[in-house]
Amino acid sequence: MSRKEPESRPETEAAAGNGLLHRRLFLTQGLLLAGGAGISGQAGAQETPSAFPSWMTRQGSSTRGYGQPSGFEEGVKRITGQGNPLFPGVGSSRTPLERLSGIITPNGLHFERHHSSVPDIDPGRHRLILHGLVRQPLVWDLEALMRYPMVSEIRFIECGGNSAGAKRGLPQTSCGQIHGLVSCAEWTGIRLSHLLDEAGLQEGAAWIVAEGAEAASMVRSIPLEKALDDVILALYQNGERIRPEQGYPMRLVVPGHEGSVNIKWVHRIKVVDSPGHSRDETGQYTDLLPDGRALQYSLPMGVKSAITFPSVGMKLAAAGLYEVSGLAWSGHGAIRRVEVTADGGRSWADAELSAPVLTKCLTRFRIPWSWTGGPAVLASRAIDDRGNVQPTHEAAIAPYAETAIYHYNGIQAWAVSAGGEVANVRM
Amino acid sequence: MSRKEPESRPETEAAAGNGLLHRRLFLTQGLLLAGGAGISGQAGAQETPSAFPSWMTRQGSSTRGYGQPSGFEEGVKRITGQGNPLFPGVGSSRTPLERLSGIITPNGLHFERHHSSVPDIDPGRHRLILHGLVRQPLVWDLEALMRYPMVSEIRFIECGGNSAGAKRGLPQTSCGQIHGLVSCAEWTGIRLSHLLDEAGLQEGAAWIVAEGAEAASMVRSIPLEKALDDVILALYQNGERIRPEQGYPMRLVVPGHEGSVNIKWVHRIKVVDSPGHSRDETGQYTDLLPDGRALQYSLPMGVKSAITFPSVGMKLAAAGLYEVSGLAWSGHGAIRRVEVTADGGRSWADAELSAPVLTKCLTRFRIPWSWTGGPAVLASRAIDDRGNVQPTHEAAIAPYAETAIYHYNGIQAWAVSAGGEVANVRM
Repeated sequence: MSRKEPESRPETEAAAGNGLLHRRLFLTQGLLLAGGAGISGQAGAQETPSAFPSWMTRQGSSTRGYGQPSGFEEGVKRITGQGNPLFPGVGSSRTPLERLSGIITPNGLHFERHHSSVPDIDPGRHRLILHGLVRQPLVWDLEALMRYPMVSEIRFIECGGNSAGAKRGLPQTSCGQIHGLVSCAEWTGIRLSHLLDEAGLQEGAAWIVAEGAEAASMVRSIPLEKALDDVILALYQNGERIRPEQGYPMRLVVPGHEGSVNIKWVHRIKVVDSPGHSRDETGQYTDLLPDGRALQYSLPMGVKSAITFPSVGMKLAAAGLYEVSGLAWSGHGAIRRVEVTADGGRSWADAELSAPVLTKCLTRFRIPWSWTGGPAVLASRAIDDRGNVQPTHEAAIAPYAETAIYHYNGIQAWAVSAGGEVANVRM
Repeated sequence: MSRKEPESRPETEAAAGNGLLHRRLFLTQGLLLAGGAGISGQAGAQETPSAFPSWMTRQGSSTRGYGQPSGFEEGVKRITGQGNPLFPGVGSSRTPLERLSGIITPNGLHFERHHSSVPDIDPGRHRLILHGLVRQPLVWDLEALMRYPMVSEIRFIECGGNSAGAKRGLPQTSCGQIHGLVSCAEWTGIRLSHLLDEAGLQEGAAWIVAEGAEAASMVRSIPLEKALDDVILALYQNGERIRPEQGYPMRLVVPGHEGSVNIKWVHRIKVVDSPGHSRDETGQYTDLLPDGRALQYSLPMGVKSAITFPSVGMKLAAAGLYEVSGLAWSGHGAIRRVEVTADGGRSWADAELSAPVLTKCLTRFRIPWSWTGGPAVLASRAIDDRGNVQPTHEAAIAPYAETAIYHYNGIQAWAVSAGGEVANVRM
């Protein structure tokens, strides 16, 4: 074997400055094959005589009831922060975005945020109650709910506090550590509007207040208009029943709205005439303003994106062709466009969006990039189908107090040094 | 609490015989709430005073690196057949379709079919070689492949032998046991056309032969036209790296073609002028005809569907409203329409298809059904966007020998008895 020089074909064409290319790029990375290449087998003549790898000559595993990742992928885990030893169930873990591809987050790696701990709920004993300003208060067990008409939708959930570190500073950790409080799954369940309709709304109904069945009894308010629109009482996550840390046996999925209103382990919904002003939406999950007041109920997550490859903490081995790849999403609708820069914002090129591009769903974007080996600053800027444009860092922080931490969606820039190291920078 | 009579609203309207309804159905299953309902918590006035459930009063679990399903879902497992004790790695396991919803199969429950066993491949030592009728034979390691442009697509994979039991008889087992050699995932990887282009095709190239790196060295032939069309060298499955039993560290995904050509653990691809006639496509995976000859290379899987709820082995508790739900798919394209009957085929109604409806992808269909409590025969019939219609059992078996087992896609009917028991029947 000898290494060919990576080459770019004549059809390679600049899309923006510092190496961003149109999709016609043909990267060539294969090594020339001459003589033995370490592979043998059954097919055809043995042009490549050599020893069989050990895994072809010994018994492997059999089928099993529930599969797990390869032991070689043990490092691909949720990123769990330092917990408080006095309250071991409180905390969060983040999706390692830079280790994944596509838009689906596998259930084992969906981010977590727990305000007390993960309750071990017996689904046979769990009840959902709906009361307040309704014609008839109702209660359901799981068996009754399983008979309802269901919908399946692929939607992201993002914690309101995602990327707070990137607002306050320039953590040199990893894309997942910084932005990994967002994940995406196919959620299957019952339209909440269906259950509200069954109970019958009374005059004056304007909000719902939903409560979780964990020890902390998380309580959040949702405008009735949203509750009647696209909210799902979700029972399944990527095909199987919801995982305990995502709300087993049922949770609300409130598409596009901050994670904490997607009440996990939901066991009570009260219809009311004004928001609940619960502990969880007064003591936290509000946006502090420069004058000391705070915005409440700023629920939709803004349009946002981040490049997952290359990203902070990585090192590019050598100059040459790469595919820049990342994720974009908006709590207001579908992603219409993602622009990428490699020269710190002087020029931008449209990335390719991977189909299907769905509303309130992660969207994978990709664009080829020829790295010259010189310094580069990569960043992405998402635009949604409502015309919202992901703001610069300065524009994103301007409306809020310096200590505000929620809803940060500023453009994320990564600098590539001449040595190939990738760092978190402002652009 | 007292149970309300399930009611159907005035807007309920017949869509076909024996209770199939238009989507406007509003099922009502909630129990009237009067007094204590076993739920307490923080929100609002305590209209429902009672003890807190145990999981709200004791410490639960903390965050963890890689999540698992609830212990209460231990019964939701792949269905593993009786293995051959002399060859413990050989066999298959099936997706429990009737326990899932949506279209994504979680990675732990994706079906398996192994011809030897699951090799424990060190990705750092794995190589992919491309040779034969190419300008330049090439070899890649994983590191080189990870730099290529990638695509992400949600596609089903179905074993050619799926549903063979339903062709031969009327197994009274479960929908997953009968039809569960089909699963669906978001696959991310490199277009094979990209690698073939890099090696450069020589005159006469017409097929590729792909080989797996398991002990059995599975070898299958794929027409070059297909290989240049939509075949993916897949590295990721639902976001994370492919699971060992689905081909870690890399496999072919050959959208719509029978499972065995989606070569797992792929380590060699040879470009040739005619199909390889390997052991795996002569001794098996051929369609025996009535005259004793056999069709080879009948690769696309036909248009097909199955109702997953209700399905064989279940028991409906009482007459009333239900949602009939199932899966449809076609190896030729996207599902255009799924018709459902509740009267054994005398009348049919269109089910609702859950978006997104993608090519060569599972499609979830749903339709409301009011079960009178009398006998009913439910069945689904899928139609794809090429105009292919799922055949009756008789039409599906007609072209083949009685002992043929592959590519069975006949309509699956389930009979509901007056007692609510669901059985596998011919229609």
